[in-house]
Amino acid sequence: MSKRNKATIHDIASKLGITASTVSRALNNHPRISDATKKLVQKTAREVNYQPNNIAAALRIGKSRLIGIIVPTANRNFFSSVVRGIEELANKLDYKVIICQSYENYKKEVQTIDALLSARVDGIIMSIGKNTEKFDHLQRVLDKSIPLVLFDRITDQIEVNQVVIDDYMGAYKSVQHLIDNGYKRIAHFTNPRKINIYSERLRGYYDALKDNGIPLDPELVIESNMQLEDGKQNIVNMLESNLGFDAIFSSSDYAAMGALQMLKEKNIKVPDQVGLVGFGNEPFTSFTEPSITTIDQVSIPMGNVAAELFFELLKADPKKFIPQKTVLKPELIIRGSSVRKIKETV
Amino acid sequence: MSKRNKATIHDIASKLGITASTVSRALNNHPRISDATKKLVQKTAREVNYQPNNIAAALRIGKSRLIGIIVPTANRNFFSSVVRGIEELANKLDYKVIICQSYENYKKEVQTIDALLSARVDGIIMSIGKNTEKFDHLQRVLDKSIPLVLFDRITDQIEVNQVVIDDYMGAYKSVQHLIDNGYKRIAHFTNPRKINIYSERLRGYYDALKDNGIPLDPELVIESNMQLEDGKQNIVNMLESNLGFDAIFSSSDYAAMGALQMLKEKNIKVPDQVGLVGFGNEPFTSFTEPSITTIDQVSIPMGNVAAELFFELLKADPKKFIPQKTVLKPELIIRGSSVRKIKETV
Repeated sequence: MSKRNKATIHDIASKLGITASTVSRALNNHPRISDATKKLVQKTAREVNYQPNNIAAALRIGKSRLIGIIVPTANRNFFSSVVRGIEELANKLDYKVIICQSYENYKKEVQTIDALLSARVDGIIMSIGKNTEKFDHLQRVLDKSIPLVLFDRITDQIEVNQVVIDDYMGAYKSVQHLIDNGYKRIAHFTNPRKINIYSERLRGYYDALKDNGIPLDPELVIESNMQLEDGKQNIVNMLESNLGFDAIFSSSDYAAMGALQMLKEKNIKVPDQVGLVGFGNEPFTSFTEPSITTIDQVSIPMGNVAAELFFELLKADPKKFIPQKTVLKPELIIRGSSVRKIKETV
Repeated sequence: MSKRNKATIHDIASKLGITASTVSRALNNHPRISDATKKLVQKTAREVNYQPNNIAAALRIGKSRLIGIIVPTANRNFFSSVVRGIEELANKLDYKVIICQSYENYKKEVQTIDALLSARVDGIIMSIGKNTEKFDHLQRVLDKSIPLVLFDRITDQIEVNQVVIDDYMGAYKSVQHLIDNGYKRIAHFTNPRKINIYSERLRGYYDALKDNGIPLDPELVIESNMQLEDGKQNIVNMLESNLGFDAIFSSSDYAAMGALQMLKEKNIKVPDQVGLVGFGNEPFTSFTEPSITTIDQVSIPMGNVAAELFFELLKADPKKFIPQKTVLKPELIIRGSSVRKIKETV
């Protein structure tokens, strides 16, 4: 610690000729200390550049007032909006959040848990990576009775508080909407890793087709990593294999965007020849031509709920913990890519 | 700490019948401890769910191996790419990063500094908010000899390591490119807050016009917050006031995107009637029609350099600190919005 010359409460005490205990109580807003003394202590604390040693406090009372958040990447509108929803509530309660990114990398996710515990967060709110199949690192957090809440990408393999949207319903609504607009050969872009969100969306896709008496064709279910380039490549492959399709429901806005670009390159008209629905309501879906119909994942409310579940855990007795799962309703945002122009009759 | 039942090195020691000091040295890979003992201690540590108390270690040796990053928002391709650049180097050196967002809010920025210091980060890498005009919170960090590096949005009011792009050059190149494509009445979208990046870009805009003998018209310099809606509104205002313009150099991709949308709504052809250049190379600039010419801010290298400056500070003697400023060259990405079609001669 040699380089860092930290002022302590003792420095403030000796400067003011009062006891360190009085300084401490003044800084902690103790009712027995007069307002005048509190003001004087605060002023002196600023003068000597006193930094409250919150770590020592954390070690003592187990509260750093920090929430650790882990997301695959912060550079996604969905994840950043959930973080914003968490911060809204956290800041009201005088908590701060710190964010770590796992980059969908399992090893990094594990290390990140350790980094957050080192930073002495009071708990963790996270969305698991696509490639995470073991959950020991999360179980370790639970075993320490450190509050943990999962959102969006969850697992049922551990007993933990969770908040998700109804992915099944989002998919079902999307496909029903395409059917209502006269599309019949509806392809589905999905991820080979069947984490909860993708398996639920696939189920919704199948059920909507079934309920409308449309035969299921497994060849129309296209697996990829669903980045923009994957969406483009999917279209190339689908056209080459003469699959015959008149709509796409993509589990990812990025793949939907790639599909739109490639369809245009191939002079296939959206929505007239091919209808398109994405998932996630990333801002760019409203910028394209046509704009892309998509599912809004109510991300700010999801963050609010995640924070609520977190603060409930924080004050609850861990021995009496009963895991809760909150399911939010997603919203279909209808835009140009899926609404066919009504043919004019002359 | 009542709820959190943490295993200590004493638990490991008593389980193995060795001293706590031996356990500690084994865990810290001390050369005097045999490999057999090290393995045994590590195995037992895992069994009892031992979590190394890095905070205690941090208090002792001042190293948490955490770097705190503050950005206005992580949901910007530029900021998230800089973070990625920082992480590339940090992870190689076994450091982790934690990210906080200031949301361009001065008060939040100050609180975030405190939160990161509470989390005992070894130092901070940050980009300051648009509305930050006082820098006491940064000076406090410097006064403690805690490494601090600023990137992109910087200030010359404190002595600190900095990495920026040459915003002047980026602007100059953009405007020269528009002039080379035959545009003459070039408007500039800027921010009323003249933090370094905006004042340098404005200077580059002026100088490029001057050097090409094009008269400066202050009415063509349009101030706004430069979000998407501002870009739209700017176009509406410019058309209503009959300003007469044939190109726009926008200090923000978001405002450029808004401008493009409104120009299309008004049936004004880009690039034939109005040329457009943005700044930042946000991914959506390549998705639009036409795609938007913009300045790439070499964000990954900027993150690499910021991390390098950080690690230099970390090992340097703070008494011998001489602030460094690294200036990176930005790149003009020429796309459809600024290149006029050559008129066919029949």
